[in-house]
Amino acid sequence: MRLHCERGDVPKLVDHEERRRGLADAVFSVIGQRGFEAVSLRDVAAEAGVSMGSVQHYFRSKDDMLLFALTHMRTRVAARLQTSLARLSRPGRRDLIRAAFGVLLPVDEPSRQEARVNLAFVAAATVRPAYADMLRQGYERLLAASRSQLQEAASDGELASGIDPEQEAAALYFLAQGLVGPLLIGLFTPAQAFAILDHQLDRIFGAAC
Amino acid sequence: MRLHCERGDVPKLVDHEERRRGLADAVFSVIGQRGFEAVSLRDVAAEAGVSMGSVQHYFRSKDDMLLFALTHMRTRVAARLQTSLARLSRPGRRDLIRAAFGVLLPVDEPSRQEARVNLAFVAAATVRPAYADMLRQGYERLLAASRSQLQEAASDGELASGIDPEQEAAALYFLAQGLVGPLLIGLFTPAQAFAILDHQLDRIFGAAC
Repeated sequence: MRLHCERGDVPKLVDHEERRRGLADAVFSVIGQRGFEAVSLRDVAAEAGVSMGSVQHYFRSKDDMLLFALTHMRTRVAARLQTSLARLSRPGRRDLIRAAFGVLLPVDEPSRQEARVNLAFVAAATVRPAYADMLRQGYERLLAASRSQLQEAASDGELASGIDPEQEAAALYFLAQGLVGPLLIGLFTPAQAFAILDHQLDRIFGAAC
Repeated sequence: MRLHCERGDVPKLVDHEERRRGLADAVFSVIGQRGFEAVSLRDVAAEAGVSMGSVQHYFRSKDDMLLFALTHMRTRVAARLQTSLARLSRPGRRDLIRAAFGVLLPVDEPSRQEARVNLAFVAAATVRPAYADMLRQGYERLLAASRSQLQEAASDGELASGIDPEQEAAALYFLAQGLVGPLLIGLFTPAQAFAILDHQLDRIFGAAC
């Protein structure tokens, strides 16, 4: 709430957030290795190579730490999306939608780690309302983004005839979600999962099929 | 391996399996309340109201118990599917497919409990190959069933023109899977989730849309 900052405050704030993010990455490792229920401030401290007191300095409680880890996961996914979009030259709306869904799929180690963490949160959310609230907000935001992309595509005449953008936005988004588990347990290769998604994109965007 | 049974053996075997199933139900409760990682033979014994020794009599190890619980979950889902199908009078192939996917959705307390347990197994499978093997077999079986239903529907001319039964079977199945998390965390009501599924079934079966 301070409006006047002394010299040095800004770097300190940046450092504070960076330390929290570093600890959130340690939370991800612990969840990946030992599961969600096993995460303790002590484990995270050990994983990050810092003292318990240091973790307690950055997070008031285990819950505070886990909720921050969830926020941090979204930041990581958003950053991967930006990288993925930057690689496309002159992307069309279909490319944007494919990239946005593709970034949710566990196809390499960072995305597998994020997917495992997300799954653990969904499982935990069934008994912890605060997690459910945060997860719902995330789903709603992505669903709204997916919907508005398809609605704009429809307005611009980019979709096949008879396509309902709202219904198909939901179906595409939850199809991508449904491919996460199968990819995590090795039922599909990334290419096979993308082929399932691409078939639907072909249909929606009216590619010859 | 004994081919000759003494009188009394059959009831005893039945009783043994029934006890194991009862303990598997206790595993579900413990997972639902405290999460997958927290499940111990001790907790299950307490939940089931039996001694630790009794649980150890029925399961050689915690892993043995958890793998049996996964099998038991499938038996429960299959039984719910039979009940659901028995309620339909003269079901068409679309009704059968809808019922088969519908039974996977967490829309009441038993199906929510099964979905939570399944989610916990998927999360655990990312670090335990034995679980991943069992889950893959389950996915493959349901995917094959979904595919053969749609292929038969296609052969009988029940599908809309241009529909690829193999691709759509996968998309429908994983769409249903993708709706599990959102239903568990209260993003959708059951009716809303079924509306998303029904829109796709309308399209595939060529209902006016």
